Amino acid sequence: MTASHVSPWAGDEANVPSSRVVKLEPLGGLKMECGVGLPPIQVAYQTYGTLNSDRSNAVLICHALTGDQHVANEHPITKKSGWWEVMVGPGRPIDTNRFFVICSNVLGGCMGTTGPASVNPTTGKIFGLDMPVVTIKDMVKVQALLLDHLGIEQLFCVAGGSMGGMQVLQWAALYPDRVFSALPIATAARHSSQNIAFHEVGRQAVMADPNWRGGKYVEAGVRPEKGLAVARMAAHITYMSDDSLHRKFGRKFQGREAPTFSFDADFQIESYLRHQGSTFVERFDANSYLYVTRAMDYFDLAADYGGSLAKAFQASQARFCVVSFTSDWLFPTSESRAVVHALNASGSSVSFVEIDTNKGHDAFLLDVPELLATTRGFIEAAAAVRGLAITK
Amino acid sequence: MTASHVSPWAGDEANVPSSRVVKLEPLGGLKMECGVGLPPIQVAYQTYGTLNSDRSNAVLICHALTGDQHVANEHPITKKSGWWEVMVGPGRPIDTNRFFVICSNVLGGCMGTTGPASVNPTTGKIFGLDMPVVTIKDMVKVQALLLDHLGIEQLFCVAGGSMGGMQVLQWAALYPDRVFSALPIATAARHSSQNIAFHEVGRQAVMADPNWRGGKYVEAGVRPEKGLAVARMAAHITYMSDDSLHRKFGRKFQGREAPTFSFDADFQIESYLRHQGSTFVERFDANSYLYVTRAMDYFDLAADYGGSLAKAFQASQARFCVVSFTSDWLFPTSESRAVVHALNASGSSVSFVEIDTNKGHDAFLLDVPELLATTRGFIEAAAAVRGLAITK
Repeated sequence: MTASHVSPWAGDEANVPSSRVVKLEPLGGLKMECGVGLPPIQVAYQTYGTLNSDRSNAVLICHALTGDQHVANEHPITKKSGWWEVMVGPGRPIDTNRFFVICSNVLGGCMGTTGPASVNPTTGKIFGLDMPVVTIKDMVKVQALLLDHLGIEQLFCVAGGSMGGMQVLQWAALYPDRVFSALPIATAARHSSQNIAFHEVGRQAVMADPNWRGGKYVEAGVRPEKGLAVARMAAHITYMSDDSLHRKFGRKFQGREAPTFSFDADFQIESYLRHQGSTFVERFDANSYLYVTRAMDYFDLAADYGGSLAKAFQASQARFCVVSFTSDWLFPTSESRAVVHALNASGSSVSFVEIDTNKGHDAFLLDVPELLATTRGFIEAAAAVRGLAITK
Repeated sequence: MTASHVSPWAGDEANVPSSRVVKLEPLGGLKMECGVGLPPIQVAYQTYGTLNSDRSNAVLICHALTGDQHVANEHPITKKSGWWEVMVGPGRPIDTNRFFVICSNVLGGCMGTTGPASVNPTTGKIFGLDMPVVTIKDMVKVQALLLDHLGIEQLFCVAGGSMGGMQVLQWAALYPDRVFSALPIATAARHSSQNIAFHEVGRQAVMADPNWRGGKYVEAGVRPEKGLAVARMAAHITYMSDDSLHRKFGRKFQGREAPTFSFDADFQIESYLRHQGSTFVERFDANSYLYVTRAMDYFDLAADYGGSLAKAFQASQARFCVVSFTSDWLFPTSESRAVVHALNASGSSVSFVEIDTNKGHDAFLLDVPELLATTRGFIEAAAAVRGLAITK
């Protein structure tokens, strides 16, 4: 973030992140799922707590679509608390007094890990759409390289919600020996048709903005803010439940008693959505939004295993806890149940909790006591088996 | 529609519709709900069948958001069949051999009834955003003026789905003596917070398009097609169910075996949505989309009756048949149930059918046998009571 911008935005964090940074250059470059090789990759990450002497207490948090590595510290752009401080911190269910917690920005992101807003080290220019299309598997491979760099062979736990949960499932499948326990929340083993549809609307909104300039907006000194704001507004509706919108906003007017009979934001829900759109564009890169939504669309874990999800988990030794929320219509319980069935079929150890809440998909981010208690219980039990002593 | 356009669009139909047209000038002009008076109104409408001698066999069809008066004839722009030919026609459940069926384009529409794409007779210029904001009640009042013009005192039936169903409910409340039977389908007595939210996304998509030009795009010789297409894409998702999208498209690729790892329309659902967007803009006016969505947002029938929906129906003598669909998440059964409870509380005659289908909100437009059978049964029973003889 430099002073030269009127408003802060993620473009600065993409290249000069307020995080630990490592340059990774795997032998022969990273071969991505799309077949293209990447030049040296920058990974931006945060850690919390201390790695123990036998390196057995590492927890990897995987972030969601528009999340980032700032799990439990002030966000460098928004100055808000970390996005999962209810879950991660001293004394929290994922207790940083006991565990060494790592979270890295995903490949394709815009908060410091290589993505379309990053400078391509080969050309010295912003990647833009020259960035190869990223998949969930690519994200996970980069996380594995980061763990190699940190000298961590096996994760005590890998946890995340939504797209984070997709990464958790991919971790268990791709690196069966590196995962001791796995906590996929409000997620699915493949992105549904309806979810692809919502993502496509968002991408079309971004690309319809003339300031998008075919992805070359940074060079043009503009940003497709209006299109990205519309994309965020549409997406945001899907993160909440009909019931929570009704309870929170209903048909209440914003700062008035009666309708204005205009296209102003008469209703509170309209003001709220507009605010969500306008604040989002301050912290997120439009091209990155295209890439990360696309990664979710392409996710179909069973496809790599002859269409059998059970086969994906066959080699895994991990203990799983799968969590869904009753009012989550973006990643409904049926998707979690499909994962649980596959885990059962593969002989894995799995517990499954469907939490009754009206908070919709976003429940995984919120202070939902049953989620926190479930996580605490799962982590405690896994830690006991792993022989991780409880400290005060 | 003139030959001077490369592609046809609704702007021509707005002023020179391929429909019967009547100019209505109520004494003192039409006082709209927003408080503004309108100059003489043009109403474009279609009729089917013959009005009987005692004028007792008239059925008013109320169309939905992006519907129009072309219920059962070829559409003048798309050249497709009428939008409700499964329901309305010779031998159909609303049988044009027996009934005189009327459908008019709504106030604020773009197919010939006065709306933002119409020329304001006072100024000789296109209304654009100078058109006062329209409500469902305004639409219904204009329909009542049309019936006055046609010499029809009482409707045998008023029927419609979605926004059409809102008009049906408004008819019963506003003109209790003019409605013998009412068939509101897949609708609600008030627009929910989530539905307002989806509409607001659509409006913001339109208004974010620089070709919208603050509503003055006709004068500028451009059209906000990209923004309107995005609005349509977002809305279209809400008209279908997750299950129907899954069955119809799933994760199938479009014309290929494997992903292209690009932002092309890899998935069939993406091609389908893009097609929905691009064809919509050929037949619909962007400003009209703003007005008609806004009318739905403002709809809250109980608000006019001290918050009591039962009071809204207290004076009605109509027989009601309320229909909902199990997979309709835009207007879920709970909304229909609220209407039914109010009708029961007001002592009205009401039957209620929840139809099991995976077709989502759009089911009201489709060949759903149980809907057609329900309608046929309801119409037959009402016709018997009304003394409308069955003819061959």
